[in-house]
Amino acid sequence: MKIDGHTNLIALIAHPAGHSQSPAMYNFAFNHEQMNTRFLALDVSPADLPTAIAAVRAFKMPGVSVSMPFKQAVIPLLDRLDPTAKMIGAVNTVVNHDGVLTGYTTDGIGFVQALRDAHVPLAGKTMTLAGVGGAGTPIAIQSALTGLKTLNVFNLNDAAVANARRVVQLINDQTDCHATFYPLEDRDQFKQAIAASDLYTDATGLGMGKLIDQALVDDPTWFHPEMTVFDTVYAPAETQLMRVAQQAGVAHVLNGQGMLLNQGVAVFKLWTGHDMPVAAVRHEIFKAD
Amino acid sequence: MKIDGHTNLIALIAHPAGHSQSPAMYNFAFNHEQMNTRFLALDVSPADLPTAIAAVRAFKMPGVSVSMPFKQAVIPLLDRLDPTAKMIGAVNTVVNHDGVLTGYTTDGIGFVQALRDAHVPLAGKTMTLAGVGGAGTPIAIQSALTGLKTLNVFNLNDAAVANARRVVQLINDQTDCHATFYPLEDRDQFKQAIAASDLYTDATGLGMGKLIDQALVDDPTWFHPEMTVFDTVYAPAETQLMRVAQQAGVAHVLNGQGMLLNQGVAVFKLWTGHDMPVAAVRHEIFKAD
Repeated sequence: MKIDGHTNLIALIAHPAGHSQSPAMYNFAFNHEQMNTRFLALDVSPADLPTAIAAVRAFKMPGVSVSMPFKQAVIPLLDRLDPTAKMIGAVNTVVNHDGVLTGYTTDGIGFVQALRDAHVPLAGKTMTLAGVGGAGTPIAIQSALTGLKTLNVFNLNDAAVANARRVVQLINDQTDCHATFYPLEDRDQFKQAIAASDLYTDATGLGMGKLIDQALVDDPTWFHPEMTVFDTVYAPAETQLMRVAQQAGVAHVLNGQGMLLNQGVAVFKLWTGHDMPVAAVRHEIFKAD
Repeated sequence: MKIDGHTNLIALIAHPAGHSQSPAMYNFAFNHEQMNTRFLALDVSPADLPTAIAAVRAFKMPGVSVSMPFKQAVIPLLDRLDPTAKMIGAVNTVVNHDGVLTGYTTDGIGFVQALRDAHVPLAGKTMTLAGVGGAGTPIAIQSALTGLKTLNVFNLNDAAVANARRVVQLINDQTDCHATFYPLEDRDQFKQAIAASDLYTDATGLGMGKLIDQALVDDPTWFHPEMTVFDTVYAPAETQLMRVAQQAGVAHVLNGQGMLLNQGVAVFKLWTGHDMPVAAVRHEIFKAD
């Protein structure tokens, strides 16, 4: 559909925003579904965040995506917060219902759905998770809410460690999952936890960008074939960690593409009430079927 | 060009906005020039105008169009005002230079350029103008600034009459044009003024919508063949007034399409620094060459 006077605007609000793949994904989906909506990535300086959120109401935008560095800062500017987003303490999606703005987080939903798509169950299982930042936090909480039995949380003693401990506490207080925090510096403990796990999930961001050659696990014997290894990195599509897992003969080795796609599916549903054309988007955006 | 993370957003800010033809015109032009920009029409409630203008800065939009009912109300929200826009007392275009917003009015420029395109000179000529509202005001002032010698201004004794008198005063004070106000109720004076004019311009809006069958002049003998008759209405492309002028054998009978197109050309230049592809836009938008 061509843009006309009735075309809806949906945007990413981030800083920077230019690298985002979201315009490609959502505009393909809007076009595919013949919806009169366009998605643009808007680079907003941190001082302008309150104006940007007020503009969601003023421009009657159906919603926005929110990315770094605004996922926490946006919360006090919203009218309502989804309970899971509240637990996670971050928002990546805002829905505008007649000027009332509600914040959601779909990253954890994307992770869980990606596992479902790969026929990997979470209920009753044990997972070891490395890295409890922007990706690891929703993964931990959504997994705990989805029936995970045991969660071993590893984080370096860095800026994110307080959040990691908060997440573990929250999970133990508010879900049936049993979570334990371990320092990632303790390699023996890390190896032992992975060996006892059904899933190992790496949300550290190692294996991409300047850290492309790195992996937390470089010895294939740490993994066992029956397990699932999930790396949240989606570019490159295959990381060093995934190669190590394949050498170990691991049954399910997954990158972050399914999580990215499925969090987008959840966002699309929140904004439009419609199902995203998943197969077409996967084919178009990831050039994969 | 497909929308990506770097696509610029330019918008119409109006209430309502859905009827606007601007998205079709500007997006065609952006696409034709391979510029990574999209134009959307955004319906903004009057109470939200300050937020909408603040969002022009927050979203780093290169500019916006401003239409009813905001052409006056936007002025105190801007940082700078073009001198002609200041005389006119209205803004239809905002340009954002690194967060500094300047207001312009291009309607008068569009009128003057449409006459130029038709090889109708204004310099040294006499014009009779009926209607001094949103369209008539910039036409009067820009024509006076472009060398018009004599301007006969007619307006009903309605809500716009105070503005009509202000415009006449302003033209006499600040330009070399001699302007006189007459009540449009005085039909004899009106007939006499037209007879003595090189141009008759109708900016009343008669001849469109519910008033489609009406015209201020229904007697062809009021016009003379050497003159130009300009109706600011562009839909329908031919009005009752234009038919009367054609019966009179008037040399140049023009509708508002050239004014609309040329005001857009001026806007495009202000936002982008580039020339709009006029011929292609005229062909695409007005289906005319």
